[in-house]
This record gives sequence, C-alpha cells and structure tokens, in this order.
Amino acid sequence: MSAEPDLETLVADVFARGCTSRRTLESITGKWGVLALVALREGAYRFNALRRRVDGVSEKMLAQTLQTLERDGMVHREVLATIPARVEYTLTPLGAEIADQLFALVELLESRVPQVVEAQAAYDADRPR
Amino acid sequence: MSAEPDLETLVADVFARGCTSRRTLESITGKWGVLALVALREGAYRFNALRRRVDGVSEKMLAQTLQTLERDGMVHREVLATIPARVEYTLTPLGAEIADQLFALVELLESRVPQVVEAQAAYDADRPR
Repeated sequence: MSAEPDLETLVADVFARGCTSRRTLESITGKWGVLALVALREGAYRFNALRRRVDGVSEKMLAQTLQTLERDGMVHREVLATIPARVEYTLTPLGAEIADQLFALVELLESRVPQVVEAQAAYDADRPR
Repeated sequence: MSAEPDLETLVADVFARGCTSRRTLESITGKWGVLALVALREGAYRFNALRRRVDGVSEKMLAQTLQTLERDGMVHREVLATIPARVEYTLTPLGAEIADQLFALVELLESRVPQVVEAQAAYDADRPR
C-alpha cells in the first residue's frame, strides 16, 4: 500500500483551501484567465495580438496568466520555426472544454448587463454618499 | 434624442475594459465571488456560516465580496428581526442563474483535476529548478 493519495479516489473540492481544484479555479477565473481562455476560443493567437484582444492587460500579467494556464494544461505554447521565431498560443482539448463553459458564463452575463446596471443604480440610490 | 447611451441597444463586451460586464465578470469570477455564489446555491447563509463554508476567506474579503455581489444584484442581504438581529444572505434570481453556470464550471473543473495534476507534473519536469 502506498501512502500517496490516490488521485482516482480523491474527490476534488474547490471549497477546500488546499485542493488543486481551488488553485486551478483561481487561475481559470482570475482577472485575466477568463478573458485569455475565451479569446483563445477564437483561434491561435500570438502574444501581442492576444494582448490587444484582452484590452487593458499588461505584458507582465498576460505572460504570467498564460504561463499558469500552460502549466495547468489549458493552453499550448508553440515556438514556430520562423525567422524571427514566433510564439503562438492555442487551447488544449482540456482548455477548450473549460473555455466553452466560461464562454457560456460570459454570454449569460453580457445578456444580463441591463439588470446589473439597474441593480447597481438601486443600490447606490439607497446609500447616498 | 438623448445623448445617454441606450442600454437596450448597447452590446455588452467583456473584452472592452470600460464595459460594466467586464467589472461584473471580475466580481463574479473573483477569487471569492465564485465560491460565495456557488455556496449560496445550497441555500441561505448567515455571514459566519458562509465564512466557514468558503474555507480560507477573511472576514474583510467576504464582506467586500458580498457587498459587491449585492450591488450587482446577485445576492440579497436580509436583516432578520430577531434578537440579536441576524443577517442572512440568499441568491437573487439573477444570482441563481449565474451561480448555476458557475457550478457547472466548478463541476467540470473538479472532474478534470487528475488531468490538471498530470499537466502540472509534466510542465515542472521539463523545467528543473
């Protein structure tokens, strides 16, 4: 018998602070993780093009986001043998599954923006500054 | 003609940094937003019970998260007329819709944890420290 936990029988629980699923949830739903994954559903991106697509992200934050997503097996980074060398990012099959789910969330949210704006106005009206 | 943008005809775009949907996406997918919304699918929670459920969140961060979710119309905060007064949090219909979508994401992610762990191990093996 091994003292190592058996991954097949362990139940992942995002509510448990030490669980891998919690850390991965944070990276796919982090400020930039969602936008990078949803953008990559549109096809392969080079770094600078992706940075333009994800309006407002800094070079450093995008690099860090992509690195985490690559490590988690969501994003594939390919160095193309061109001169000069180009680096292209695509979704892995796992990343595509997660990105589809995130896209559904984004679509739902975008369709509900008028309700959100209304709620914000009502909230602020009740609490005059 | 009004100079105010017409909410019905404006298209929400999470990729645009100034869009309300971007800010709301950040709050529902923030580090604690996802977990609070998914927890509240289980039913009404009082603050301290919710804090125990969302393992690892500080009092300050949970209060801030709930306040943003309340302002966005996702969470309803009710002060119960008990002695001492109790405060209970529930999902609004809008919050329930978003939370269902987040729950689907969490379920997908939890089921893929073995793949994530494998990807992380392969990534780390390629890059010895």
